[in-house]
Amino acid sequence: MKLIIKNGRVLLFEKDKAVVKKVDIGIENSKIVQVGEISEGFGADKIIDANNMLVMPGFINTHTHLAMNLFRNYADDMLLQDWLTKKIWPLEKKLTAEAVYWASVLGIAELIKSGVTGFLDMYFFVEETIKVALETGVRAYIARGLTDEPLGMEFQLKETKELYRKFDGKDGRIKIFAGPHAPYTCSPRYLKKVKALADELGIGIHIHLSETRQEVNDSIKQWRKTPIKHVYDLGIFERPTIAAHCVHVDDDDIQILKECNVSVAYNPTSNLKLASGFAPVEKMVKAGVNVSLGTDGASSNNNLNMFEEIHLASIVNKCVNNDAVSIPAETAIKMATINGAKALGVDGELGSIDVGKKADIILIDLNKPHLCPLHNPLSAVCYCAQASDVHTVIVDGKILMENYELKTIDLEKAMYNTARCAQKLTGA
Amino acid sequence: MKLIIKNGRVLLFEKDKAVVKKVDIGIENSKIVQVGEISEGFGADKIIDANNMLVMPGFINTHTHLAMNLFRNYADDMLLQDWLTKKIWPLEKKLTAEAVYWASVLGIAELIKSGVTGFLDMYFFVEETIKVALETGVRAYIARGLTDEPLGMEFQLKETKELYRKFDGKDGRIKIFAGPHAPYTCSPRYLKKVKALADELGIGIHIHLSETRQEVNDSIKQWRKTPIKHVYDLGIFERPTIAAHCVHVDDDDIQILKECNVSVAYNPTSNLKLASGFAPVEKMVKAGVNVSLGTDGASSNNNLNMFEEIHLASIVNKCVNNDAVSIPAETAIKMATINGAKALGVDGELGSIDVGKKADIILIDLNKPHLCPLHNPLSAVCYCAQASDVHTVIVDGKILMENYELKTIDLEKAMYNTARCAQKLTGA
Repeated sequence: MKLIIKNGRVLLFEKDKAVVKKVDIGIENSKIVQVGEISEGFGADKIIDANNMLVMPGFINTHTHLAMNLFRNYADDMLLQDWLTKKIWPLEKKLTAEAVYWASVLGIAELIKSGVTGFLDMYFFVEETIKVALETGVRAYIARGLTDEPLGMEFQLKETKELYRKFDGKDGRIKIFAGPHAPYTCSPRYLKKVKALADELGIGIHIHLSETRQEVNDSIKQWRKTPIKHVYDLGIFERPTIAAHCVHVDDDDIQILKECNVSVAYNPTSNLKLASGFAPVEKMVKAGVNVSLGTDGASSNNNLNMFEEIHLASIVNKCVNNDAVSIPAETAIKMATINGAKALGVDGELGSIDVGKKADIILIDLNKPHLCPLHNPLSAVCYCAQASDVHTVIVDGKILMENYELKTIDLEKAMYNTARCAQKLTGA
Repeated sequence: MKLIIKNGRVLLFEKDKAVVKKVDIGIENSKIVQVGEISEGFGADKIIDANNMLVMPGFINTHTHLAMNLFRNYADDMLLQDWLTKKIWPLEKKLTAEAVYWASVLGIAELIKSGVTGFLDMYFFVEETIKVALETGVRAYIARGLTDEPLGMEFQLKETKELYRKFDGKDGRIKIFAGPHAPYTCSPRYLKKVKALADELGIGIHIHLSETRQEVNDSIKQWRKTPIKHVYDLGIFERPTIAAHCVHVDDDDIQILKECNVSVAYNPTSNLKLASGFAPVEKMVKAGVNVSLGTDGASSNNNLNMFEEIHLASIVNKCVNNDAVSIPAETAIKMATINGAKALGVDGELGSIDVGKKADIILIDLNKPHLCPLHNPLSAVCYCAQASDVHTVIVDGKILMENYELKTIDLEKAMYNTARCAQKLTGA
């Protein structure tokens, strides 16, 4: 299958600098094979006319819990502890594979419609989420959530191992991570076991770290060190690690993250909505820490819209740093693309439009009132664009959405079944 | 003309509390005449089926500069002073009536498409903006920007007076405000003249106040008082006043705002993007100050999307106040509707769906993946909904957008001409 995207304005990273150029893109099977003028006789099976479109790498959502779509708008404007203990946890105990399946279909529909081509998910019944990713064509990085439940410990590790054997590398789109939930839900003994498993399988680790002030205070009380120092001392960071949140990190924490090449999945909406705090993003970026973006789950966001995360990453940090130049559009867009690929250890294959990389590409429709006039396409993406401007989405060289129409998902069915499953859980 | 909106979930404010009920709405000419079961023999000319829609009062954008759409994405990620002196002001000197006309058409298209039924604009060549409002059917509150330019002083006041004579009350949709730009661009002598004019015409005042720390520091240095105390002492607040921004206000300032019934037009995106600061919104709300929402102009936002302002008003203040319960969805939605009407002194006529009020109503399409499941419609509006979910917009009983289609604006023409005028200004 050969595909050409022509006449578009293309967002390229040239020597790490974002530039927008009028070039055409040649795709063969899953890969980008030409960028520039397409060679004569390329013989495309299909030509996409990207006139008046911005062509850019798909977004990579590096922290989410897709199935929490079930709890979207179910419990808001509540204190964190009440939210978790009275609302979310009781429902999660009643979760079924079917509910996770449909919420994953809906979640992936929402991701595709907002320009996301790959995501890192941590949850339960993840085999369902993997199934949906395989069916719908999106790229999925999956961590079975691991917590120190009585009796659950060995079982969860075994499940991770089985998921790895069964799915890692499947269709070139699935990758398994070890997913210890957090140091406050996993004992040191368990974390060491997780690390040993990750070593054995040669996989990365995804973990929540330093999300709230309370978590850090508790850690210092219990272990006499911050959560980051705590898991560092347990050897977690010897594996490639993506740490979600990192809101309350001190200079020593940042030094550890940098030295250990730990990537931070920053979730601005969730951090704001749960009143977790303002992550010191500029400080981490300046220290050389790789910061990527995530939406977190729909129960704390409450959508899965990476445009909102890009927007907030830029404007919130400007205000926090009292500096209108902080986290410019280019930096925020990189967080959502190439930095996501770096976080997942796949920046050789993904995150930018370059010959040899996988064709995970989105087309943004510039023919919108809120994007006119188009003085600066990077500003347009960061400060103006909406999920609803995503016109076409390509993953692994296959078109998953074209002219706003999902090609691999029956959206009505997904909405109907997710609502049905949610109703069953909440008893509403 | 009689219109019925039926089968919708309708957002009502009952005894100040937001509730969502399945009721029908009967509209006769410009007014809502029935809410509930429509009486037999009502004899509608048209019935709108709002099945699977949320029907709510249109948003009121209480601070914008529509024509700054010309400078959208033209100058971002810059220091405020450079932005103003090197980029914005030089272009504003070259503004033409034609440019303002087309940018106003584009701006109003953007407003309608994001559910805004009325707006308060402060700028130059405002007669063009008024013309467009009259042509397109939207509700417009207009302040000719007043600054202490040499020779310009008397002329600007005369223009305000002429605008008032010519347009105030026109078609029941235009209202003129006096628009002294700010205390740092208007001398006390000028502010007194503005106040005298507002007294003479019996109109309200719209002014920028305490937007930046610098402004407050300069005011204290020059006048030994805050900008708010300064204009209070000059008598400005004896007129109904809408003060934009009020980011850096102290307890005494808040007390003055409350006692003088000054409304605050809070502009979260602009405040964040320009690194102006975090306005003490919760404190003002608790003190009883009426806080409404604005987008500011597209050069500092960079769109005119009230959904983003509602979202930010809620989530940013939660984080600032370290309290996930701060500014709940209901409060943020009121800021965008009934509080906007209060700010403009028209809450007897607008801002809620009640018998006797003007029919300024929007329909939000709930059949979207990011709004499913619909556990809570208020949360859905505040935390999930997008401008692109606005399905139908009614102003003054007339349909300005139906099934996503603008009825009074040629969007392609507006975009083409705005881009053309912007190009002429920037020379790009």
